Amino acid sequence: MRKKQGLLVILDGLGDRPNPELHGKTPLESAVTPNFDFLVSKGMCGNVYPMTPGVRVGTDVGHLQIFGYDSNKVYTGRGPLEAFSAGMILQQGDIAFRGNFGTVDENLVVVDRRAGRIREGTGELAQALHGMVLEDGTVVQVRALTEHRVAVVFQGSALSDRIVCTDPGTAEEGAKLVVPSPLEDSAASRRTAANLWEFTKKAQRILERHPVNAKRKAEGLLPANTVITRGPGMKQDFPTVTEQYGLKAACVAGDTTVGGIARLAGMDYYTKDSFTGSFDTDLSGKADLVLKLLKEDRYDWVVLHVKATDLAGHDNLPLMKKEMVEKADAMMGRLLQGLDLNQCYITFTADHSTPCEARDHTGDAVPTFIAGGDVRKDGIKETGETPFMAGSLQNLTANDIFMLQMDLLGFTEKVGA
Amino acid sequence: MRKKQGLLVILDGLGDRPNPELHGKTPLESAVTPNFDFLVSKGMCGNVYPMTPGVRVGTDVGHLQIFGYDSNKVYTGRGPLEAFSAGMILQQGDIAFRGNFGTVDENLVVVDRRAGRIREGTGELAQALHGMVLEDGTVVQVRALTEHRVAVVFQGSALSDRIVCTDPGTAEEGAKLVVPSPLEDSAASRRTAANLWEFTKKAQRILERHPVNAKRKAEGLLPANTVITRGPGMKQDFPTVTEQYGLKAACVAGDTTVGGIARLAGMDYYTKDSFTGSFDTDLSGKADLVLKLLKEDRYDWVVLHVKATDLAGHDNLPLMKKEMVEKADAMMGRLLQGLDLNQCYITFTADHSTPCEARDHTGDAVPTFIAGGDVRKDGIKETGETPFMAGSLQNLTANDIFMLQMDLLGFTEKVGA
Repeated sequence: MRKKQGLLVILDGLGDRPNPELHGKTPLESAVTPNFDFLVSKGMCGNVYPMTPGVRVGTDVGHLQIFGYDSNKVYTGRGPLEAFSAGMILQQGDIAFRGNFGTVDENLVVVDRRAGRIREGTGELAQALHGMVLEDGTVVQVRALTEHRVAVVFQGSALSDRIVCTDPGTAEEGAKLVVPSPLEDSAASRRTAANLWEFTKKAQRILERHPVNAKRKAEGLLPANTVITRGPGMKQDFPTVTEQYGLKAACVAGDTTVGGIARLAGMDYYTKDSFTGSFDTDLSGKADLVLKLLKEDRYDWVVLHVKATDLAGHDNLPLMKKEMVEKADAMMGRLLQGLDLNQCYITFTADHSTPCEARDHTGDAVPTFIAGGDVRKDGIKETGETPFMAGSLQNLTANDIFMLQMDLLGFTEKVGA
Repeated sequence: MRKKQGLLVILDGLGDRPNPELHGKTPLESAVTPNFDFLVSKGMCGNVYPMTPGVRVGTDVGHLQIFGYDSNKVYTGRGPLEAFSAGMILQQGDIAFRGNFGTVDENLVVVDRRAGRIREGTGELAQALHGMVLEDGTVVQVRALTEHRVAVVFQGSALSDRIVCTDPGTAEEGAKLVVPSPLEDSAASRRTAANLWEFTKKAQRILERHPVNAKRKAEGLLPANTVITRGPGMKQDFPTVTEQYGLKAACVAGDTTVGGIARLAGMDYYTKDSFTGSFDTDLSGKADLVLKLLKEDRYDWVVLHVKATDLAGHDNLPLMKKEMVEKADAMMGRLLQGLDLNQCYITFTADHSTPCEARDHTGDAVPTFIAGGDVRKDGIKETGETPFMAGSLQNLTANDIFMLQMDLLGFTEKVGA
């Protein structure tokens, strides 16, 4: 099969709905996007469901779907993904949690679920908890992630991920840490719930007297005096994209969760400090790195991820989201200057919709196009959820778009003969 | 997640095909429908498959699909649904049938499968059969439903719903009652078939000499001298919509089958004598009740069902079907006067197509729209199977439309994080 290269651009949480602040247009529609429009006219488009219509997904599941996986089969919770991102190798039977350093008062009411957005000293705090041995012999591994985030892994015998964790969630102000409880009638589930509470209480005693927190209190900052856990899951083995299709793939992103999922999928992960995962991220730097990976390093497939569109959705900032789309369009212009569309297909999509007014992920389909050389053209010429409704990819799924890319690139096996 | 309300309007059997009596238009297309057109312009539309393309469904399965269920998993025959509608509680292992009181001659030829559309005295006839004990100890429960209809339940040990029942169907004039036979090579299947024939013969002897029939014969009416059975099924447990999504839901309908399915799905069922399930049904009364349920009783999701469009299809009355659509459009106008589309989404669909010329349910997709506040708009402005073919929901399924509603209303859980 003839081989070509492919670039996949993902604007996180891009999908939106008609917004009154944008005169009834979506951020993508109201943005001026000459480069996206050019590509749309050179290919086919549509609004595509991350999983199935109306099912809303997280960033992790959304990216697994974009990378061709059936999340119903491979996804076991966010914990294992975060642990993987932190470089921890899970063994069969280990339970991984994602967690925050947070602040609780003496009644275990959560005062701040991010400990004043702590950034410094988290490595030392994690190290102080790392290696804790619980009463039943379970060993706890703790690793700091970005900002207030940590990964926690329980290594023991007969543990279960079917438990309620300590995180009370974001819904209620002044909620208390949840006492873990089993989600099924099994000794493993009961034991793991008890272990999580034992770890939480012991961690609080260690954190309370840690020098990092003494310093924070002296400076008038909230102490990181607890670990708040959620997203338990067990090791799950699944074949990498690179193994399955025999291609060489890379991911350029600032967001470590996306980077972790890309690595799980077998891609090489590239990031820089200037790729902040926020509004100030270095889009020109991302474009230049992508061009290098495609042209010098000859990657078959490069994924470029931009996070800030999702943040604007969560914060109900439609003008900011529109502005971020325009910056991404300029980034695309820079990419187009360096790429030959006859050698490299360009696909554009999102992992889910985060409509500004909803302020959360929804199950709406996400605007998507595939463009380049010999791609069929469906005649749509403008970028946006509305024009794409008449496109030829309408109502397909993220898994479908993945397979269409693998096919265009020439990396699929023929079924039959 | 932000919560909103939703109204779902179902016109039973609405879907149709180009009809020569309507100059090549469908009843929905030829009807004047300013209110539907207004809503179509405020949302997205398409023709939607009840299950999958070309699969034709009954009212029961069609509604299960609309309520988000996979009928292949939850549907076990019409019998259990009718028994549930009649207030009978099935136990594990019971077999339920739907049935008619009918008239047979001395050779068991079906003279009238509805016993002259008997309406009076069916409660007494059912009571005379109720509690019958068969030779193997099986107890038979019989309950009268509307008009000539009855529910029959066998309570015994090792019974099976895999049998051919006594109903010869409507195809042939002068067909005889069918002698029940097993559909699989099992003792349970053979025993149940024998039981059904034993019940049928004993019931005939009791009915033949019942005073209700003596009176009918004296008045020159056909006697209800047999029970004709079909649709056998066993108890099936499935989670209610209200449990699954944590919403408060109601159904307004005249048709007791739809009401029974709605109750099985966990909805509160509202009906009135003026909701006849026929052409003379009280659509204004339905609209007023729906407005009360949404505005005063604060239901999250209200389903409004209209039956007569289906009857017009079965009777090949395209003009009547068109007229019924126009009445439903006027009902929608009354609803729109009382609703704020920024607070309440409106969805419109059918359980299946009943094209007039086909005179039966077909597997054609059904015209469907979702409208309201921030719903994406696909630019379609007219109501009908033809304009909807260019809509953005084209080729989705009833299950998809259900999930899109739950997502818009804010009652879905995020998959992943």
